[in-house]
Amino acid sequence: MATFDTKCIACQDNTGKMMVHTIQRRAVGPKDVHIKITYSGICHSDIHTGLEEWGPRTYPLCVGHEILGKVVAVGAEVKKLKVGDVAGVGCMVDSCRTCEFCDIGDEQYCLKGFTGTYGAKGPEEKYPGGITQGGYSKDIVVDEAFVISVPENLHVAAATPLLCAGITCYSPFKKHGVKAGDKIGVIGLGGLGHMAVKIGAAMGCDVTVLTTSAAKKDLAMSLGASRVIISTDAESMKSAARSLNFIYNSIAFDHDVQQYLDLLKNEGTMVLVGGVPKGAMPAGSFALIGRGLRMAGSLIGGVKETQEMIDFCAKHNVLSEIEKIPATPEAVEEAWKRTVKADVRFRFVIDTGATLE
Amino acid sequence: MATFDTKCIACQDNTGKMMVHTIQRRAVGPKDVHIKITYSGICHSDIHTGLEEWGPRTYPLCVGHEILGKVVAVGAEVKKLKVGDVAGVGCMVDSCRTCEFCDIGDEQYCLKGFTGTYGAKGPEEKYPGGITQGGYSKDIVVDEAFVISVPENLHVAAATPLLCAGITCYSPFKKHGVKAGDKIGVIGLGGLGHMAVKIGAAMGCDVTVLTTSAAKKDLAMSLGASRVIISTDAESMKSAARSLNFIYNSIAFDHDVQQYLDLLKNEGTMVLVGGVPKGAMPAGSFALIGRGLRMAGSLIGGVKETQEMIDFCAKHNVLSEIEKIPATPEAVEEAWKRTVKADVRFRFVIDTGATLE
Repeated sequence: MATFDTKCIACQDNTGKMMVHTIQRRAVGPKDVHIKITYSGICHSDIHTGLEEWGPRTYPLCVGHEILGKVVAVGAEVKKLKVGDVAGVGCMVDSCRTCEFCDIGDEQYCLKGFTGTYGAKGPEEKYPGGITQGGYSKDIVVDEAFVISVPENLHVAAATPLLCAGITCYSPFKKHGVKAGDKIGVIGLGGLGHMAVKIGAAMGCDVTVLTTSAAKKDLAMSLGASRVIISTDAESMKSAARSLNFIYNSIAFDHDVQQYLDLLKNEGTMVLVGGVPKGAMPAGSFALIGRGLRMAGSLIGGVKETQEMIDFCAKHNVLSEIEKIPATPEAVEEAWKRTVKADVRFRFVIDTGATLE
Repeated sequence: MATFDTKCIACQDNTGKMMVHTIQRRAVGPKDVHIKITYSGICHSDIHTGLEEWGPRTYPLCVGHEILGKVVAVGAEVKKLKVGDVAGVGCMVDSCRTCEFCDIGDEQYCLKGFTGTYGAKGPEEKYPGGITQGGYSKDIVVDEAFVISVPENLHVAAATPLLCAGITCYSPFKKHGVKAGDKIGVIGLGGLGHMAVKIGAAMGCDVTVLTTSAAKKDLAMSLGASRVIISTDAESMKSAARSLNFIYNSIAFDHDVQQYLDLLKNEGTMVLVGGVPKGAMPAGSFALIGRGLRMAGSLIGGVKETQEMIDFCAKHNVLSEIEKIPATPEAVEEAWKRTVKADVRFRFVIDTGATLE
């Protein structure tokens, strides 16, 4: 098959050690979009994957699923994008496209499993080496069905995390009917939580941030929150009882949700996005029945909804708070370490286009 | 205050011992409806309350919140009903009527707490003795705002359980968007579950019953199920994986929901109605996130929705399966014992009008 070479920053092995590496991308097919990557965000999922915390991998592996760049070539049948356009790619590069979930634009729940942007098995003719390689790279070739058209004003490093963190907030907000005037809570002010505050505020919601860190109060207010509650302060928690229509729970470590469920109004909804293996649910059904409460999980969002989110963020000038780093093995290694320690406000973005050599 | 006497079957104490007793009802006020009770259903909640399993009570206490009868008097301002009409009363006889939940017709989630049909504290001028007395009685006087207008063809003993069991199914079906063509599951074939099968089938759903009892298979099919799965049969459970849009979980004892969540399609919903103090939730949030699943609690339903449910059941000829018993202390005591043993298909109804003396 026809391929071309591109440079990337790749995991050498499962220790978090990086290297500059050369990978192959497929030649542009009739429905393909060739994107010259400008920026690539660092998501905690990259780290879980790279360190084999979510199962065994083949190395070297190039991760990254928050991808922003310029279209440099398109196939003959491509309609959505043209050369020179700004384009984005998120967590998926393909799906079965025929099941009932692909049909409704929820490719993230594809019955055959979507093809992840990196580390997923796929046909050799589409993915040289038989495994998808992600965004810490100079170039990527993706079927236009999985490419997001990005308005020019979002061709900035701070827009990059929208492709994963942004849609992981926007999708459950929309699916659970969050609307202007709603009182919403955001638990945890990290990569996801800070986007939820910004998107919620842009939607016209009244946003309460729940955090254990008093030091984050001013920051939370500056992001758009109208209220910050320190979740370890029993009095504050009590005063906020039954005040929220919706809670976005981004906590990714063991915790008891009951104290947060108490903050929901009757018939309110808590959405969980931080995968926690244990201790994240009330034990009994009484916790939900008496007040008609709802709990739901949510996984990223579909392509159509991602496009809608990008257009929404462009219109409302919603960007991520980021720290830009150069595309060197050392800088990425350091960024991963700091991400694991939650020592980042709030997302690292690799300046791939300018600095990857 | 003006009151009148009426006979009832009352709990003598918290042992389940019954007695014929005389209680007072308030005289009919301008907005009141005086119902001569024809039938009164026996709900498991009556038993939990009467045996003080849900907190201390004042005895003698007349329970019962599935009430069907004829209107024999109405106040001057009553518009919804007239003398001679068939009327029903469910689990509530009042609420604050001003909070946001009463405003939207969800009085069951009233912020001040609804007034339960029996055993609830209330003003002496409305509830002689200061405590509400329920439906195992000859007469009841209820504000028309909490009285359901019942079509004449439902003036039968088998319609009585609709006022509690019926609405406890209908409300979550409607609130979670269950519609014709949906594939729904019903876990547990008891008082609630058998109504869920009938109502689901009447809505045009394809109903699967999950039960531990192979002996109930024919019965489930005769109620309207298209499929019965024995939940202890791993092969059958596996064959039904990811096949259901919605699950109505009526189990009221400790159980692990994970095996049932596996039966939901992606983005499916499980509603819990059987209060279980522990062991009714998956521990971790992964159970919901990867497939976008939803779990929700639900408590009875509001007055407007109860009226809608009654009209729906009248139109589709949906009735409960019942066993009629006379209004004697002995018969009620025996019915309670059999209900606790789940030895009833599926609901006892007391023939109050004809036999209470």
